[in-house]
Amino acid sequence: MPSSNPRKHLPLPAKTPVAATTHPCVPVDFQTHPTRYKHWKLSFEGDIATLVMNVNPLAGQREGYELKLNSYDIGVDVELADATQRIRFEHPCVRAVIVTGGLDRVFCAGANIVMLRTSTHGFKVNFCKYTNETRLYLEDASANSGVKFLAALNGTASGGGYELAIACDRILLADDRNSAVSYPEVPLLGVLPGTGGLTRITDKRKLRRDHCDAFSTVAEGIKGKRAVEWNLVDGIAPLSKWNETVKEWARKLADAQPVRAQQGVELDEIRCESNADTRLYKYVALRFDRAQRCVELTLTAPESGALDAAAALAQGNAWWVLRAFRELDDALCHLRFNEPEITLVALRAKGPAATWQQMDALLSLGGNWFTTETRHFVKRVLKRLDNTAKSLYAICDEGTTWVGTGLELALACDRTYVLDDEERAATFGTSAANKGMFPMANGLSRLATRFLGTPEKTDAVLSAAPTFGAVEANELGLATYAPDAIDWDDELRLAIEERTAFSPDAMTGMEANLRFAGPETMETKIFGRLSAWQNWIFQRPNAVGERGALTCYGTPNRPEFDVLRT
Amino acid sequence: MPSSNPRKHLPLPAKTPVAATTHPCVPVDFQTHPTRYKHWKLSFEGDIATLVMNVNPLAGQREGYELKLNSYDIGVDVELADATQRIRFEHPCVRAVIVTGGLDRVFCAGANIVMLRTSTHGFKVNFCKYTNETRLYLEDASANSGVKFLAALNGTASGGGYELAIACDRILLADDRNSAVSYPEVPLLGVLPGTGGLTRITDKRKLRRDHCDAFSTVAEGIKGKRAVEWNLVDGIAPLSKWNETVKEWARKLADAQPVRAQQGVELDEIRCESNADTRLYKYVALRFDRAQRCVELTLTAPESGALDAAAALAQGNAWWVLRAFRELDDALCHLRFNEPEITLVALRAKGPAATWQQMDALLSLGGNWFTTETRHFVKRVLKRLDNTAKSLYAICDEGTTWVGTGLELALACDRTYVLDDEERAATFGTSAANKGMFPMANGLSRLATRFLGTPEKTDAVLSAAPTFGAVEANELGLATYAPDAIDWDDELRLAIEERTAFSPDAMTGMEANLRFAGPETMETKIFGRLSAWQNWIFQRPNAVGERGALTCYGTPNRPEFDVLRT
Repeated sequence: MPSSNPRKHLPLPAKTPVAATTHPCVPVDFQTHPTRYKHWKLSFEGDIATLVMNVNPLAGQREGYELKLNSYDIGVDVELADATQRIRFEHPCVRAVIVTGGLDRVFCAGANIVMLRTSTHGFKVNFCKYTNETRLYLEDASANSGVKFLAALNGTASGGGYELAIACDRILLADDRNSAVSYPEVPLLGVLPGTGGLTRITDKRKLRRDHCDAFSTVAEGIKGKRAVEWNLVDGIAPLSKWNETVKEWARKLADAQPVRAQQGVELDEIRCESNADTRLYKYVALRFDRAQRCVELTLTAPESGALDAAAALAQGNAWWVLRAFRELDDALCHLRFNEPEITLVALRAKGPAATWQQMDALLSLGGNWFTTETRHFVKRVLKRLDNTAKSLYAICDEGTTWVGTGLELALACDRTYVLDDEERAATFGTSAANKGMFPMANGLSRLATRFLGTPEKTDAVLSAAPTFGAVEANELGLATYAPDAIDWDDELRLAIEERTAFSPDAMTGMEANLRFAGPETMETKIFGRLSAWQNWIFQRPNAVGERGALTCYGTPNRPEFDVLRT
Repeated sequence: MPSSNPRKHLPLPAKTPVAATTHPCVPVDFQTHPTRYKHWKLSFEGDIATLVMNVNPLAGQREGYELKLNSYDIGVDVELADATQRIRFEHPCVRAVIVTGGLDRVFCAGANIVMLRTSTHGFKVNFCKYTNETRLYLEDASANSGVKFLAALNGTASGGGYELAIACDRILLADDRNSAVSYPEVPLLGVLPGTGGLTRITDKRKLRRDHCDAFSTVAEGIKGKRAVEWNLVDGIAPLSKWNETVKEWARKLADAQPVRAQQGVELDEIRCESNADTRLYKYVALRFDRAQRCVELTLTAPESGALDAAAALAQGNAWWVLRAFRELDDALCHLRFNEPEITLVALRAKGPAATWQQMDALLSLGGNWFTTETRHFVKRVLKRLDNTAKSLYAICDEGTTWVGTGLELALACDRTYVLDDEERAATFGTSAANKGMFPMANGLSRLATRFLGTPEKTDAVLSAAPTFGAVEANELGLATYAPDAIDWDDELRLAIEERTAFSPDAMTGMEANLRFAGPETMETKIFGRLSAWQNWIFQRPNAVGERGALTCYGTPNRPEFDVLRT
């Protein structure tokens, strides 16, 4: 067993006793721009982009910790997510991205430990979920936009630092007797490499399980040839040849990808007007009922949209589809982080059926790179919805349009309430959007997941008329409950009251189990299995108690464990 | 929403304030016999067995709760597991089993709530795991022994009661305006239907996910025609036609199965000699190092075994294979429940290679029903090993025999330590046992799981000579570490010391993620996803805190929730 000091690569907090205090959350802002980045530098050279991580230790998202040694917090990850998005939309000429570090000897030390220690349980859980989504977005860009990522580990990548690396397509590690890849979470902190780490080493890098086990318990990590032998990295290079090897590898990745386009679409900032009870974007509106811990989320399509792909591209960032789903994405992130007391989302899709149908036709035809990019973006936002730990009720009353992607929003919900009243009619209909254009994390469409045991019902819905009404929707199995006009208000009120009275934890656990029937993928494993175990550990005294490992790390105190195995 | 009193079907504890005290565990005994059952009655009529649940309220496994309304504890489930096993081995003529209740109006109220509330976290987790395994054993008997199960719900089946029903092949529910199936866990207790419940309604019964959601939040459950429409049950029958319908359904199930055999093999009691530091069975020995929180588990094959299937059948219960793996099963259950401080198992397989090879040849040939039954039993014990929350080190030193099923035991471990010393030789070799005869919960063989990314290495191991030595084993990728004679003792000692010093919770979470690479099945979902979320909830104040729902249920106190969603 190597005997070097395993703590040297981790950001050490000040050597003073630290109580397990929890800092209040500061609202997280999900809008940023490369000109405002504090922690990353994004540059371009032809078809290769370079993302340099150079975290500003003093620019944490809130007070109470320093982001030493390229350790990260939610602010750092928001910038990474933003950069990935902009590369896809603003720089379609990019075919490879070099992800590297701006510090000497350390690539990235992972999630900041003091930040984790002083965060609420709910913040920790949401932070991990967001960082998992960001890493999946790298993989989505690789799979669907021909943007390949090279992790150029110019120093040690610990914990979340290595988890970022294995979200990339290729990993090159400096061969300098110092640089290693490591998971110090288990040995030093008593928690898991929970940002996809344990899943990707088994299911993506496909290490031998005993190597996974050994690697995950050796705090100082593994370097050099053994890292290659175990498939932890794809290659090593001495510092004397570092720059040329990185360039060569990036060049090779880029050359294997098709050219998409030269001219991109700039993404401006998503803005909203908000006060205590509302948050109003252009197409998305949030209206809070704080007494009931419920929010109404309505996405309204405009009267008309671009008629073809060229028009959509010409509108670019102003195209309502891109704008509306960017707003929805911002709203979902806001609800998760900044509105923890809100437990239920009552979701409506509105606007003319024709606009929704037109949108879906454009997205499915894939007339140019921009509509294809937008389709994948809508897919990711729908997955963000699937993965949001709030109870989701789809509400269908007067003026609601459950058509195509609008119907997809409803199918993402835990329940659907459909008003059975011809005088206050809603519109239903399907499109290519419901035929697998937006697969869930389980790889299936939302209709196929809903009717897993009765695929003929999926066919029946897809074979229905272009638009239809509430009675037929109910017959087709699209309504959980379909009260008539007399019962509607009472039933909906009771259903909301009932839901918000349940244990929020039981809801989170129940929904996480019920939302993803059928096949499992690396993605469902990350959110279903790994995250659940990490959340469990984040509650256990052995990690977060007064003498837990996470609490004691970097302090003069040594952890003391309750030794009972469960 | 139905308005009947949702609490009526649950076993109500005495109406006195109950503090969230935890009772000390009483050692669990996993050996029982139908003549000693306290809670079930097992009877036979031709090829149909009947299992009547009639729980003795005063015969709980420990003090502190009454098993009212056919609620269950670990003692009740040990009897169910025993009955299922005996039906397979002792009564091979059985082709259908009727599982029904002996009480009026109630089939089974699920796991006993006061028992859960007053158990340690570790006991709760192990209790749920064992009950999950028992229900999977019902399904294994159905899939592999042609024993079909009919849940004849003569009254309400709540929580674990309904979870038992959905582990059966068919469900018949009494249609009497009273009998319902229900999951009251979420609405009343703030925990999950965690005995496979949330997984089986989505992935086995394939209910629509919004129906799953609605069903899991309606404490009083669903009855009659709607229960059929939603696929919660397969049919309903009025009490006037109850007995004849049950018989008719059981007859139909039995008739569709092939006849296996008339004469069974009796299973006698597994006995061991034990003291504070050892637990010695005939073929299995446990030797505890309590200071190190480690146990040596050694399974030694005898000098020779039965030469053919007929001889094995003639030896019956005394056949070493059945005996040895029944001992191993008992030892694993004992370690889980009765030795919570033990964190590491150092596992050895011994005995002549020829005995192991002979065993595997007999099991793979399937010469008669008994060797086939034994094969499936060995498979289940190996899965019990995979699923045991202890760190598993396979130790290979002088006299160790990693051949066939013996090698399988090693491959189930988190790491393998192989002594590289020709003078103290161990024996390695493969057989049919390593080619998929004992699939893991993920459906793959242990070799295929180990070499998920490099299937050619699986082929290389399987193509090696019938037996080989440590050097070749290491070259073939079977050793995690292969120290030589000089380093062996120190390295092993350090590896054990290191492991037992880690946070036991981090080990549990890490191993649960690393042991099951590759595809997921209903089984891996139950243990990976559902169990992890349930364990999380079992730690949350909203369930088990002073004013948590589980703590308050049945007391004058109303639960008070921390309303923050994670």
